[in-house]
Amino acid sequence: MGRLTGGDPSLLRRINSAVVLHALRAAEAPTLTDLVKVTGLSRPTVEGVVEGLIDTGLVVEAAVDESATRRQGRPARRFRFRVEAGHLLGVEIGPHRVAALMADLGGRVMGSAHVEVSATASADERLERVRAAVTDLLKRAGVPGDSLRAVGVATPGIVEADGTVRLGTALPGWTGLPLGERLRRSFRCPVLVENDANAAAVAEHWKGAARQSDDVVFVLAGLSPGAGALIGGRLHRGFGGAAGEIGALHLLGREATPEEVLSPTGEPLHPLDEAQVAEVFALAERGDERARAAVERYLRRLVHDVAALVLALDPELVVVGGWAAGLDGILEPLRTRLARYCLRPPLVAQSLLGEAAVATGALRLALDHVEKQLFAVESTVTARR
Amino acid sequence: MGRLTGGDPSLLRRINSAVVLHALRAAEAPTLTDLVKVTGLSRPTVEGVVEGLIDTGLVVEAAVDESATRRQGRPARRFRFRVEAGHLLGVEIGPHRVAALMADLGGRVMGSAHVEVSATASADERLERVRAAVTDLLKRAGVPGDSLRAVGVATPGIVEADGTVRLGTALPGWTGLPLGERLRRSFRCPVLVENDANAAAVAEHWKGAARQSDDVVFVLAGLSPGAGALIGGRLHRGFGGAAGEIGALHLLGREATPEEVLSPTGEPLHPLDEAQVAEVFALAERGDERARAAVERYLRRLVHDVAALVLALDPELVVVGGWAAGLDGILEPLRTRLARYCLRPPLVAQSLLGEAAVATGALRLALDHVEKQLFAVESTVTARR
Repeated sequence: MGRLTGGDPSLLRRINSAVVLHALRAAEAPTLTDLVKVTGLSRPTVEGVVEGLIDTGLVVEAAVDESATRRQGRPARRFRFRVEAGHLLGVEIGPHRVAALMADLGGRVMGSAHVEVSATASADERLERVRAAVTDLLKRAGVPGDSLRAVGVATPGIVEADGTVRLGTALPGWTGLPLGERLRRSFRCPVLVENDANAAAVAEHWKGAARQSDDVVFVLAGLSPGAGALIGGRLHRGFGGAAGEIGALHLLGREATPEEVLSPTGEPLHPLDEAQVAEVFALAERGDERARAAVERYLRRLVHDVAALVLALDPELVVVGGWAAGLDGILEPLRTRLARYCLRPPLVAQSLLGEAAVATGALRLALDHVEKQLFAVESTVTARR
Repeated sequence: MGRLTGGDPSLLRRINSAVVLHALRAAEAPTLTDLVKVTGLSRPTVEGVVEGLIDTGLVVEAAVDESATRRQGRPARRFRFRVEAGHLLGVEIGPHRVAALMADLGGRVMGSAHVEVSATASADERLERVRAAVTDLLKRAGVPGDSLRAVGVATPGIVEADGTVRLGTALPGWTGLPLGERLRRSFRCPVLVENDANAAAVAEHWKGAARQSDDVVFVLAGLSPGAGALIGGRLHRGFGGAAGEIGALHLLGREATPEEVLSPTGEPLHPLDEAQVAEVFALAERGDERARAAVERYLRRLVHDVAALVLALDPELVVVGGWAAGLDGILEPLRTRLARYCLRPPLVAQSLLGEAAVATGALRLALDHVEKQLFAVESTVTARR
C-alpha cells in the first residue's frame, strides 16, 4: 500500500479545489450556495476556492439575469467554468491523410481540418502537413496558438510512453521517430502520442459504439488488424505500448502474408491501397468466386485474430472499425463465428465514428490530460498495494 | 468523475483509521509518538483511533521491556497489530488433489494440508475432501473455525464474480456449480473463488518469479494452456472471468486436439494424466524421434498461444508453470521463439512456486479481501471518470 496522506492540508486543498471545479462544470452557472450544497464543503472554503479559480482564469462570474434583479433585489453571484480558457487538438497522422480536430476545454469540437498526404511522403513532409493543417484550423477559428493546452496525436505503430515510435512500418521514416519530441517543438504544450487503434478505442468509448461498456476491444480492420483495448474504462497500452498488435501472430509462420490472403489472384495487394481492397469486397458482393474465396480467407484469419484477443482479454464488447468498405459484410459472420470460438462470446458492434474515430480519440487523450491536471486528485489519494 | 467527498467526516475517520493501522503494521511496536510522526495526524486523533482498534481486537498493547522501565522511569506505551486476531485459508481444488494453506492476518503461512482425490470424483465428494483437509489443518494448528476471516479458493474453469463455475470441463460436475455458495455454507466467512491460472499469477507476483513486475502473464502449461494476467499489479479477470483461456483458440479449427498434439503414437493422451505426459518429455529427452516430434508440435502450439497472449497484452514478463516435468526443456525454445514472434518480446521465467502456486494465490486473494476491509479507503476516495 502506498501513500495514505490523511492529514495533509495541501492535499485537502487540492481535493476541495477539484470538487468545486467539478461541481462548477457539472452545473449551470451555480451560486456559492449551490456549490456549498453540492460539495458538502463550508461556505468560506468554497468562496476561497472560487476566488482562486477566478485568478487562474478557469472560472468567471456569470452574467446576471436582469429580470431576476428587479424581482428580488441584488441577486446572488453566479459562476461558470470557462471552457474557452484554453483549447485542445486531436490529430491523426495516417498513411494517406492528416486530420485535426479542435475543441474547447469542455471537449466540444469547434472545427476540423484534413489534408491528403502521399503514402510515400517522408517523415519531415508528413510533419509539415500536420503543422500546415493545424495552422489553418487555428486561423479559421481565430484561436491563437498559445491557447492550446494539450495536443493528442494518434498514428499507426507501436508508440513508447515518451512519444517515440518504436515500430511503424506503415509510414516511411516512422520507426524510431521521436514524434512526441518533434511535435512538442511546434506546439509548446503537452503532446500525447498514441497508437491509432488505441485512440479509436478511446473515441468509441467516449462518443461511439462503446459508450455503454468499460471493457472493450476495438479492432482496426486492415489487411493486418491492429487493436486497442479498454479495461475498466482505461486504455490498456501494455508494458511497452505494444498491446493489441495481434496481426503479428502470422508474421513468422509459413502462412500467407496479409497481402496475399485477401487477393483473389494470388498477386499481393498493396497494404495501404484501400480502393483495391474495396474492389475485392465489391466483387465478392457481386458473386465473383475468387473474390468470395479471398474474403472468406480474410474473414477466417480476422476471426482467429479477434478470437485470440477476446480469449486473452474477455471484453464485454468488440467494436470493429477501419475500412469503411466491406465492413458491413464481415460483421455478421464475425459475430457468429466468435460466438462459436469464444467461451464467453462478446457483443460485436460496428464503429459509429468511422473515419473520425482516430482523431476523436486523440482529442479525448488531450482532454484527459488537461482534466487530470485540473482534477489532480486521483493519483495522490489512491491507496495502492 | 465519481464521488469526491472532500468534506465527509466519516470518510476522514476511516482514512485516519486505515493510516494508523497501516503504520502499526509497518513498524515494530510503535509508541503513540511514533505513530503521530509517521502519519502526520494529531496526537488526539491517533489516540482515538488506537483505542478504537484495541476495542475491535485488531490492536493490542505490546509487552513492555522491563530493562527500559528501570532506566527511564515509566516507559511510553507501545502497540502492535494482532496478526493472530484472525486466520486465512488458501485452497486449491484440482483434478487430482485438494491442497490448503493457512495463514495469520499478516499472510504468514502457519500450516498446510493436502489430500489426493480421484479425477473422476463427483463435485460432492471433492467438496467433502476440501472440508476434511481444512478440518484437519485447523485442528493440527489449534485454530477454531470461527477465527477464519476469509477463504480463497482456486480451481480450473471459468469462474464468475459470485463464485459460480461457468465452465469447468476438467472436473466432473464442475460446470454450473455454485462453488462459492456451497463453500460459504461450510465456512461462514467470505469465500473468494478464482480460476487456478489467475491465482497462480497472483502468487508468483506475491512470492515467486514475478515479484519485480506488475505486468505479468502466467501460463499454466497443460495439454491445453490456461493463463492469468496481472495488469499494473492487479489481476485481470475479464468482463466475465474468462480472460486468458487461450487454449480454446484451437477448439473449433480442423486442427489436432491438444491430446493428439503431444502424443507420439497418434493415440490421444489422457488430458489429466501427468505421468503419461512426463513420459513423453522423458522419451524426447532420451532421443526418441516420435516423442521429439510430439514435443516439437506441442511447443509450436504453445508458442503460438503464448504469442497471442503477449501480442494482446504486452506484458513485461511471462512466467511458465504447471507441469513440473518437461518445463525445463521448453523454457529456452519458448523464450527464443517468442522473441522472434513478438514485436516487443517479454522476459520469460519459470515458476518459482511450482505446485504451491495455485493455493498460495488463493491465500493471497483471501488476504487481499481482508486488507481491503481493514484499509477500506481506496474505493471511496479514488476519483474516477
